[in-house]
Amino acid sequence: MTKFEVLILGNASAAPTPNRHHTSQLININEQYFLVDCGEGTQIRLREHKIKLQRIHHIFISHLHGDHYLGIIGLLQTMHLLGRVAELNLYCSDNIKEIIDVHLKYNRGSLRYPIHYVEMGSKETELFFEDDKIEISTIPLKHKIPCTGFLFKEKEKPRRINSKAILHHEVPKFKINQLKQGEDFIKETGEIVQNNVLTLPNLPSFSYAYCSDTAYHEKIIPIIKKVSLLYHEATFVEEHSDRASKTLHSTAKQAALIAKKSEVKHLIIGHFSNRYSDFGELLSEAKSVFENTQIAEQNETFKVSNP
Amino acid sequence: MTKFEVLILGNASAAPTPNRHHTSQLININEQYFLVDCGEGTQIRLREHKIKLQRIHHIFISHLHGDHYLGIIGLLQTMHLLGRVAELNLYCSDNIKEIIDVHLKYNRGSLRYPIHYVEMGSKETELFFEDDKIEISTIPLKHKIPCTGFLFKEKEKPRRINSKAILHHEVPKFKINQLKQGEDFIKETGEIVQNNVLTLPNLPSFSYAYCSDTAYHEKIIPIIKKVSLLYHEATFVEEHSDRASKTLHSTAKQAALIAKKSEVKHLIIGHFSNRYSDFGELLSEAKSVFENTQIAEQNETFKVSNP
Repeated sequence: MTKFEVLILGNASAAPTPNRHHTSQLININEQYFLVDCGEGTQIRLREHKIKLQRIHHIFISHLHGDHYLGIIGLLQTMHLLGRVAELNLYCSDNIKEIIDVHLKYNRGSLRYPIHYVEMGSKETELFFEDDKIEISTIPLKHKIPCTGFLFKEKEKPRRINSKAILHHEVPKFKINQLKQGEDFIKETGEIVQNNVLTLPNLPSFSYAYCSDTAYHEKIIPIIKKVSLLYHEATFVEEHSDRASKTLHSTAKQAALIAKKSEVKHLIIGHFSNRYSDFGELLSEAKSVFENTQIAEQNETFKVSNP
Repeated sequence: MTKFEVLILGNASAAPTPNRHHTSQLININEQYFLVDCGEGTQIRLREHKIKLQRIHHIFISHLHGDHYLGIIGLLQTMHLLGRVAELNLYCSDNIKEIIDVHLKYNRGSLRYPIHYVEMGSKETELFFEDDKIEISTIPLKHKIPCTGFLFKEKEKPRRINSKAILHHEVPKFKINQLKQGEDFIKETGEIVQNNVLTLPNLPSFSYAYCSDTAYHEKIIPIIKKVSLLYHEATFVEEHSDRASKTLHSTAKQAALIAKKSEVKHLIIGHFSNRYSDFGELLSEAKSVFENTQIAEQNETFKVSNP
């Protein structure tokens, strides 16, 4: 069974409060960590969750509004203080390097480890990370400054080996990978054993879309179509939809409409304005359009693979 | 009675932990606030203590190591979001303006209120703030980068009015201020009433010295001589004095030696390395040299006027 989880480290927008932290999420895909956004205090949140900072090799910053990145400088410096030497990959929709460089300049120090900066476009979706199991692409969002969401997709998984059948047909070990890819097995006698005799169907692949700050933006629908889990910002309730339009944020209902039109399996909403002391109205407005909605509660973990 | 208090918002050095926050102190002198250093998360600490952010008009940054200033950008932005229009005075031993400007550049925004930047020298003590009741000067410290401490001194207070005597001698109201300054009162008859008949001695003036990151540095002794309360960093215990030398920090014993040689009334120590899970050894080493020492415990308030 693969692991694919989203840990909400913070879900507040704008001014933070002692109990509602700025945006950050830790995506865990088979124990590979991806830190998505990094509001002020994120390093403390990670420590609270006993996440080893040095296990993070990829950080994605959706945009350069303070509530989404101001924790990055402290996090980078703490990684240095704790002895990091491994490269860190830092992806951003903008030139975050200039910001980090000016801090290092006045610090008169350099980091012991290299940072590999990747500046992503924010106009069209682009694949910017890939390994043998996953692909990560940008989701162009509509906000006041360049801003991208992130789409995490598991690649098609290999077929699973039927151990009993393998033993029975005396398949040598070095053939296993070929079977997983769907090939048949040809015995030394020339007899062909069909792949579906030796393997079981592959497990389904899951996907997670993170849409941080954005106005209602239908352009993203084909990109996030049918994802297993969608996080979409929902800064306001309908009553404040004028504020949403003006600030290029979404209402909870708009987030739900995007979820519905994208036929996603499950929606979580966050980035609530701190004018709301509880999230009941936000949730009920979203649910009125898309039933399978939950609050992206701080400190909660959402399983992408089990929606 | 005047108020003169130091609230410790954080006292951790280097890597913060969930319970030990980076350096920041709020100095309250008769309800005028001075924020001294501003580690990551300081805006949250202020909210926890229900301090109204807009009541802060003066922020002093001792130096540009992350644990002393990384909270400033978020704090400035939150002040903006909450509608601030009043000027903010930002004093730093270095060019913090360049750092703040690069953040604002990528934020594509400007703050609604003006910031008045003051770059202070870090070589010699200089008076950089003065009003009718207090003076604040820099304390040049010895650290890897330009770094200054801050000396808060109440000016000599006026003599106190003896109300009974005032009534008895029928002193008109407009003479009161002159009496407070020590002048005698001349009646219409020409009779002179000595000042000490009409007034009581003035209250003592108190002083607070904040010495953030520094190696043992005797040059500060004449500057902080006989202050009521000294905060001095004490990053290490004696066993790690080699680390203290190398990193230009102090041991608890060195902090106490400065306190003793400066003949201060009361010492509080902080900025402890996170290698120490409790502060017992730091405190006992300091007390072995200077008995009237306390830990600058996070969230504790120290009265400067009542040492």
